[in-house]
Amino acid sequence: MTAANNAISIERSLNKKTKPAQDQLGFGIYFTDHMFVMDYSVEREWHNPRITPYQPIVLDPAAKVFHYGQTIFEGLKAYKTEDGGIQLFRPRDNFARMNRSNDRMSVPELDIDVAIAALEQLIAVDQDWIPDLPGTSLYIRPFVIATQATLGVSPSENYQFIIIMSPVGAYYPEGINPVKIHVESHYVRAVVGGVGEAKTAGNYAAALKSQQAAKEEGYTQVLWLDGTQHKYIEEVGSMNVFFKINGTVVTPALNGSILAGITRNSVIQLLKHWDVPVEERVLSIEELYEAGRNGTLEEAFGTGTAAVISPIGEMNWNGEKLVISEGVTGQLSKSIYDTLTGIQTGAVADPFGWVKKVEVSEG
Amino acid sequence: MTAANNAISIERSLNKKTKPAQDQLGFGIYFTDHMFVMDYSVEREWHNPRITPYQPIVLDPAAKVFHYGQTIFEGLKAYKTEDGGIQLFRPRDNFARMNRSNDRMSVPELDIDVAIAALEQLIAVDQDWIPDLPGTSLYIRPFVIATQATLGVSPSENYQFIIIMSPVGAYYPEGINPVKIHVESHYVRAVVGGVGEAKTAGNYAAALKSQQAAKEEGYTQVLWLDGTQHKYIEEVGSMNVFFKINGTVVTPALNGSILAGITRNSVIQLLKHWDVPVEERVLSIEELYEAGRNGTLEEAFGTGTAAVISPIGEMNWNGEKLVISEGVTGQLSKSIYDTLTGIQTGAVADPFGWVKKVEVSEG
Ligand SMILES: Cc1ncc(COP(=O)(O)O)c(C=O)c1O
Ligand SMILES: Cc1ncc(COP(=O)(O)O)c(C=O)c1O
Repeated sequence: MTAANNAISIERSLNKKTKPAQDQLGFGIYFTDHMFVMDYSVEREWHNPRITPYQPIVLDPAAKVFHYGQTIFEGLKAYKTEDGGIQLFRPRDNFARMNRSNDRMSVPELDIDVAIAALEQLIAVDQDWIPDLPGTSLYIRPFVIATQATLGVSPSENYQFIIIMSPVGAYYPEGINPVKIHVESHYVRAVVGGVGEAKTAGNYAAALKSQQAAKEEGYTQVLWLDGTQHKYIEEVGSMNVFFKINGTVVTPALNGSILAGITRNSVIQLLKHWDVPVEERVLSIEELYEAGRNGTLEEAFGTGTAAVISPIGEMNWNGEKLVISEGVTGQLSKSIYDTLTGIQTGAVADPFGWVKKVEVSEG
Repeated sequence: MTAANNAISIERSLNKKTKPAQDQLGFGIYFTDHMFVMDYSVEREWHNPRITPYQPIVLDPAAKVFHYGQTIFEGLKAYKTEDGGIQLFRPRDNFARMNRSNDRMSVPELDIDVAIAALEQLIAVDQDWIPDLPGTSLYIRPFVIATQATLGVSPSENYQFIIIMSPVGAYYPEGINPVKIHVESHYVRAVVGGVGEAKTAGNYAAALKSQQAAKEEGYTQVLWLDGTQHKYIEEVGSMNVFFKINGTVVTPALNGSILAGITRNSVIQLLKHWDVPVEERVLSIEELYEAGRNGTLEEAFGTGTAAVISPIGEMNWNGEKLVISEGVTGQLSKSIYDTLTGIQTGAVADPFGWVKKVEVSEG
C-alpha cells in the first residue's frame, strides 16, 4: 500500500446507539457505533481502509466465504485502566497469529502495523464504549472474509478485512467459578496436517454438535482429544488447557492441531517468572485420569482471551467423572487470574511488555 | 410450516441480465435472474419462502457464518433435453444429503419436498437460462448460512436457505480430457470423527493451500489420503475416485471422512447394471502404485456433479509419477461418461429412475 491510500478515512455515525448497562453485557451481543473495513483485490492489494458506522455487510450470494469458508478471525481485548487510560493486551501477537492463519487458509497477508493503527483509531472513535466495571472489557473481533462471487474451489481474488468491537462481561455464566467439561472421545475437532492451528471459521462449526451434546448433559464445554488416536489431550472449545499435577503445571505442546493461544503463552511466561515448574508436552487423558485417581491432580484450568482463566471443576470421560480441586477454584488458578487481569487492566505492573497503551487524543 | 406460509411468493426481476454466450460459460461465473430464499428462526422455524431477483445478501458483520462457519451447501444440475424439456438428476438425493450435512453441522433440517418444489419453481422462472449446447447445463447451488448476529461459539438461532443457479460449461478446462493429480502426503482434508462427510464450507477452505501448491507444479487437483495414517486413498478436490485394476473397478468405501457422492453412487449402480465387477473398499496408495508399476492399473477417474467424469491421466506421489491409461481417456471412463451424460440430458433411457422432469408451465 502506498502512503496515500494508507490513510484511514472516517465516517462518523450520526445515529449513536444507546449503550447497554455494564452489569448486563453478556458476551458478543452488543456492538459499538463504528467498524473498520479494508478491501483487497489482486490488482490493488489491501486498499481503502476506512472507519464507518457499524453497518451490514453486503455480499453477492456467490461470495466464496459462504461456499468455501475461506475466512479467518482473531479475538483480543481493550481495557479501561483505573486512571481512565485504555490499553490493549499483546495486540501484535494477535495480528501475527492472524497472518499465520491467513497463510494456512491462502488469504493474503496483512501489514501488522496497518492493522494495529486501524484498531487504535477505531478504539479512539468508540472509546466511550469501553466498559470499566470489574470483569468487563471491550472484545475486539478482526476478521477476513473471501468476497469473490464465483463458484469453484480456488482462493478468492477479493477479500474484506473488518474489525468489530463488543463491550463484554464474563464469557461463561460461571465467571471465574469452575466449569464442568465433557471429554469427547467420538467426534474430532482437528488433526495434524489439517487447519486446527488456524483461527478459521470451519474449526468452530465442526465443534458444535459435540458441544451441544455435552451441554444437554450439563457440561459447559468439550475437551478434545487428538484426531488420530483419541488418546492425547488437545484443547477445550476456545481455550487451551493446563493441569497442575504434583506441583508441576502441564499443558499440551503445540503440535499443529491446536491453537497457539496468547493467554496460554502468557500463563507459561508467568509461571516461569514465578519459578513454578511448567511443561509443554504430550499428555494423555489416561495419564490425567490416573493423576486424578491417585490424588496428584491438584488443579485444572482453561485459558483464552474471552474467559482469561476458567477453572475446571469436573471432567467426564466415557462416564468416569473426575472432580478436581474439590470443584472449587484452585489457589494457583486464582493467582494467575488475578495477575493476568491485573496486568490487563493496569492494576498490576507489567514486567513482560504485554500491555500497549492506546492514544485517544481524537475521540 | 403451515400451508399458508408454505406458498412461495414470486417477485420478478424488472432488469433482466444479458445472457452469456453458451460456448463461453466457464463454471460458476454467471448467475440467473432470480434466486430462492427462505428464513429460519427458532420461533417460526423455516418460513417466508420466496423467489426474488438475484440480489446481494445483507448480513450483520457479527453473523455467525463469518466467524464460526456454520454453513452447508449442495450442488446439482438441470439439463435441457432434446425435445425442449427440462430435467434434474437425482435432486431428492441431493436434498437428503443436505439434511445429513445439516445434522452434522447443527443446522435445522429442511423439508425435502419443500426444497424440491422451491427449486422447480425457480427453474420455471429462470428456464430461459438453461443452456443446451452439448456439455453445458444449469448448475444449482442450494446453501444454508447461519445469520444470527452474536459472537460466541454456539449453533445459530437464525438461518437463510438460498438457491442460486449458474449456466455452466466444463468444470475443468480439460473437459473430458485427462487431468493430472498430485497425491498429498503432508496436508489433510478430513479425518474420521470430523466433518469430511458433510458438504460444509470449511472442508473446502482447508484444501486450498495444498491445491495451490499442486497447481503451481502443473497438477489440476489433489488426491487426499486418510488423515490418520496418510496411507489410504480418500477423494479428489470435489470428486470421488475410481480405479480399474485388473478388470475390477475399485473405489474407497464411505468411511465417514469422504463425501458420499451422488455421481459415485450412480457409477457404482451403472457398473453393477453392466456386470462390471466393482468394489467399495479400503485402497492404499501403495497398492494403487503397485498396480501402476506392474501394469494392472487400467483406468482412473474422478466423479462429481461439476465434472461428471474426469479421467486421471497422471498421478504424482512424493515425486513418483504414474502415467495411467497412457494419459488418454480410457474405454470404460468414456462409456460411463457417455451413458451418464446421456441419461442426464435425456438422450439415453434411464432404467434407474434418476431423472426428474421439471414442469415449467409457468415461466
Ligand atoms: C480453539 C481455540 N483455542 C484456544 C484459544 C485461546 O487463545 P487465546 O488465548 O489467544 O485467546 C482460542 C481463542 O482464541 C481458540 O479459539
Ligand atoms: C468433497 C467432494 N467429494 C465428492 C464430490 C462429488 O459428489 P457428487 O457426485 O454428489 O457431486 C463433491 C462434489 O459434490 C465434493 O465436494
